[in-house]
Amino acid sequence: MSHVTIIGTGNMGQAIAAIVRRGGSTVDLLDTSDADKPVSGDVVVLAVPYPALADVIAERGDSLAGKVVVDITNPLNFETFDSLVVPADGSAAGQIAAALPDSKVLKAFNTNFAGTLAAGTVGGSVPTTVLIAGDDANAKALLSDIVTAGGLRALDAGSLSRARELEALGFLQLTLAAGEKISWTGGFAGVA
Amino acid sequence: MSHVTIIGTGNMGQAIAAIVRRGGSTVDLLDTSDADKPVSGDVVVLAVPYPALADVIAERGDSLAGKVVVDITNPLNFETFDSLVVPADGSAAGQIAAALPDSKVLKAFNTNFAGTLAAGTVGGSVPTTVLIAGDDANAKALLSDIVTAGGLRALDAGSLSRARELEALGFLQLTLAAGEKISWTGGFAGVA
Repeated sequence: MSHVTIIGTGNMGQAIAAIVRRGGSTVDLLDTSDADKPVSGDVVVLAVPYPALADVIAERGDSLAGKVVVDITNPLNFETFDSLVVPADGSAAGQIAAALPDSKVLKAFNTNFAGTLAAGTVGGSVPTTVLIAGDDANAKALLSDIVTAGGLRALDAGSLSRARELEALGFLQLTLAAGEKISWTGGFAGVA
Repeated sequence: MSHVTIIGTGNMGQAIAAIVRRGGSTVDLLDTSDADKPVSGDVVVLAVPYPALADVIAERGDSLAGKVVVDITNPLNFETFDSLVVPADGSAAGQIAAALPDSKVLKAFNTNFAGTLAAGTVGGSVPTTVLIAGDDANAKALLSDIVTAGGLRALDAGSLSRARELEALGFLQLTLAAGEKISWTGGFAGVA
């Protein structure tokens, strides 16, 4: 069992909190305005939009040292829905890892719509798989255990440099849903 | 009904040829060594590995003017399986479009393993969806009709600039299969 802090109380933060609790781990769900409340989890999920990350890291960075930090963002240009706002050869997760050199940064959940995390299925039929990328094998195994204990599938997507491809996948999936080509309960289901 | 030329007789070329025939369209399947045989199709699928594209375009470029040209490549560094060989802000499809300004270039099939094209399902259960990106709506509709007539699903993935994300998805999927995290009959199934 783990203790998880989730910063961000939106639909993603709440869906991830439900998975953690379902698996028997404990959760602190903090709003970004709860800057005075300590980060007690060994695993910290930054469930905030990409533009809010800089403030969270500025406020909380010191307290994230030694912890597993999970980036779930899709750093889209939401005005155009036609590009990402991170450099073409980089990723939001890579930026976070650079800003938090003493944390074990993972990319996860960004390829899952909140509805598929809550339902446990993509499109009502295919089990939801959470893709996890990162450079620390123990950190990936810990998050994978939390996800599978909560009833979902987890898949090791490789090193943190694969965050770039996970963000491309999340971007593509968001454009398809925004364009009504797929639903917000569908998407790209990982099938073994 | 359409007439399709497929250049490349590997497992992808043959799987795509079977889809085209199943839908009632006609196919010329040319080997890359058949440089003397004319390209007769209105739709031309370049079913060759990325490193072979330059030669095909050099030999065939003039005869592809006015045609719909389909790029299926995943331009991986197959020595490292850790990066693409196209620029981070570009795509193989974008390079082909630049080399063939008088053709209507589409990106398609690169996110489908040959086994899922042949079976019509991903992992034996989820219908196979072909993602198609391109800037010409009529060309996309034509290829979409060929795919759906052949029994698969087709999804308009947006403009040709989305080829970058399709290539990231194809790259990620190949690394997962090469790492035995998914099978070559599985992958990312598009679920509406």
